[in-house]
Amino acid sequence: NTLKIGMIPADGIGREVLPAAQRTLEALGSSIPKPEFIPLLAGWDLFQKTGTALPEETIRTLKEECDGAMFGAVSSPSHKVAGYSSPIVALRKHMDLYANIRPVASVPGQDGKQINMVIVRENTECLYVKQEEVTTLPDGTKKAIAIRQITERASSRIGRMAFELALKRGQEREINPSASFWKGPPKVTIIHKSNVLSATDGLFRETVRSVKESDEARYSSILLEEQIVDSMVYRLFREPEIFDVTVAPNLYGDIISDGAAALVGSLGLVPSLNAGDSFAMGEPVHGSAPDIEGQGIANPIATIRSTALLLSHLGHTEQAARINQAVNSVLLEGRFLTPDLGGKSKTDEVIDAILKKL
Amino acid sequence: NTLKIGMIPADGIGREVLPAAQRTLEALGSSIPKPEFIPLLAGWDLFQKTGTALPEETIRTLKEECDGAMFGAVSSPSHKVAGYSSPIVALRKHMDLYANIRPVASVPGQDGKQINMVIVRENTECLYVKQEEVTTLPDGTKKAIAIRQITERASSRIGRMAFELALKRGQEREINPSASFWKGPPKVTIIHKSNVLSATDGLFRETVRSVKESDEARYSSILLEEQIVDSMVYRLFREPEIFDVTVAPNLYGDIISDGAAALVGSLGLVPSLNAGDSFAMGEPVHGSAPDIEGQGIANPIATIRSTALLLSHLGHTEQAARINQAVNSVLLEGRFLTPDLGGKSKTDEVIDAILKKL
Ligand SMILES: CC(C)[C@H](C(=O)O)[C@@H](O)C(=O)O
Ligand SMILES: CC(C)[C@H](C(=O)O)[C@@H](O)C(=O)O
Repeated sequence: NTLKIGMIPADGIGREVLPAAQRTLEALGSSIPKPEFIPLLAGWDLFQKTGTALPEETIRTLKEECDGAMFGAVSSPSHKVAGYSSPIVALRKHMDLYANIRPVASVPGQDGKQINMVIVRENTECLYVKQEEVTTLPDGTKKAIAIRQITERASSRIGRMAFELALKRGQEREINPSASFWKGPPKVTIIHKSNVLSATDGLFRETVRSVKESDEARYSSILLEEQIVDSMVYRLFREPEIFDVTVAPNLYGDIISDGAAALVGSLGLVPSLNAGDSFAMGEPVHGSAPDIEGQGIANPIATIRSTALLLSHLGHTEQAARINQAVNSVLLEGRFLTPDLGGKSKTDEVIDAILKKL
Repeated sequence: NTLKIGMIPADGIGREVLPAAQRTLEALGSSIPKPEFIPLLAGWDLFQKTGTALPEETIRTLKEECDGAMFGAVSSPSHKVAGYSSPIVALRKHMDLYANIRPVASVPGQDGKQINMVIVRENTECLYVKQEEVTTLPDGTKKAIAIRQITERASSRIGRMAFELALKRGQEREINPSASFWKGPPKVTIIHKSNVLSATDGLFRETVRSVKESDEARYSSILLEEQIVDSMVYRLFREPEIFDVTVAPNLYGDIISDGAAALVGSLGLVPSLNAGDSFAMGEPVHGSAPDIEGQGIANPIATIRSTALLLSHLGHTEQAARINQAVNSVLLEGRFLTPDLGGKSKTDEVIDAILKKL
């Protein structure tokens, strides 16, 4: 009885934070199946060395041998490079990890904005289909176009995911009313820009709405609201406490989650889970952070929380909760914090402090 | 010698704030050419009554008779409506108002975030070309696509606009070092997502860069930086004081400006100018705000500042500066504020207070 986890550190601080996942899983001892870690390759560095950003072998191993995976972070070239394409975007698509679940929560008791929401980001389409084309116009100047794709199928399954999550959070709130700032019924906010994109965002909006309508028996308790994406960014900063679950097309979800991360103090705190029907991959929301690479000061918390998300998805909810409690208590104590949070600790010291609480 | 201004209140509180523009211009007396106001129709309400959101007559009058224009705000239908298309998006395109200039500044001396930046938003393309299509797939579900267009021509002219503005702000800072929080050389930050959209955002980025490179004599003093759009939203909230001028494709500019508005306390403070080579139209950044419509409590400041932007564009920079000073002094005093700023004043009381300072 083992838990086979594909480990894809990729670039930059991705390599420095991913060991936190391994150490956390190992620290759980016999309360979970024995973890086995399979190192896998991907990334911009790899591309520069080998001409491939995402080897076939990585995908094959994930599909055939792994129970789940953890991803670090990718760097991006500073100029367009022929043949290079983001391996994380490709991984999400190849593994059909259609939901990117991003919980963003301030630690109860800490200063700052009150936020405890989940962003459910569609993870396979929108502008991320990467169908682009450059042409030269008669006057010799260039014109580029990109396709933005929204399908009923993808919108429907991401909508359902959001409603299910809202129900689950609602139940958690009943047990523990202080679990989030929003005190009302389960709430899902659809993010869109259908005042401009009436066909694509119109389809997203109508489809998510109809998931609820077609299953009112199950979803009747859910409050369904909407925010235009620009207004959403405004509201997020003005009154973050009113949000519960939000569901968004790919790019809006990407943008909103960085905004929400700013409110909790650091991108280094925000985890994500790329989830499909048969596979899931944890991934810190932060990037490869070339500016702090190699100093051993990257915040491991986003990775540790992503590990908890993966564990919970694999059915080990109690262990996931233990991890999150350990993280919160280290944050509340404030003795071991990396520089992004105003502290002086190294990555390893923060991991040590968290594991001690487990 | 007159100044003919097309007045397009459109919907909701657009109708309540636009009189602020008229009263402000009238209050300037003989220091500007005598203003004449030409009321023009557009909007969602108009569409519901007449089936047209933007009458030909409005465009013709703007083109043939007006020196400039002021726009209020548009409402959006809550569901897709056949034949309806946003009149503000159409106006920008018809009048080739290719730049949407959005200065966002906290009032010196007031609490809160330190921000004094200008967002230069490309105003004619990106997803706003509104080329969308819905098809039905073999399995009976729907698929919608939208075209995102970026051209070298549009990117180049918006880039030039951004660099010119950066130079101008740099000169202002030399005269008055407290004019902005950023203390370094003129700086332009390009917003993009070329790690995913290498062709479209790649073209935007490279084109803006090459505007500088091809005119180094003029632009050598400018510091050119970049931010990926998601990271930009994060930075904006974490360290808004580092930004000077940012230049962005249409949708990113839309989103970022709402984020920046959140930092200065209210969307009701943020003005914009839709500018082309031969025409310009002021427009508050806020929307039609159906929730407060009809109460006479809409904040007129975004409109008054937009009027100043228009005046400045028309060459009346001194009068524009006077207006802005009057606004800032009312804000600093804090006696006449609308509810969005925590006050109890009516729209008209705020206008009165500002005009008294002129
Ligand atoms: C690195 C990049 C392609 C990626 C994305 O846009 O999805 C990142 O921003 C993220 O949020 O995971
Ligand atoms: C009303 C809408 C079409 C518009 C836009 O997206 O441009 C608004 O958000 C704005 O910022 O002026």
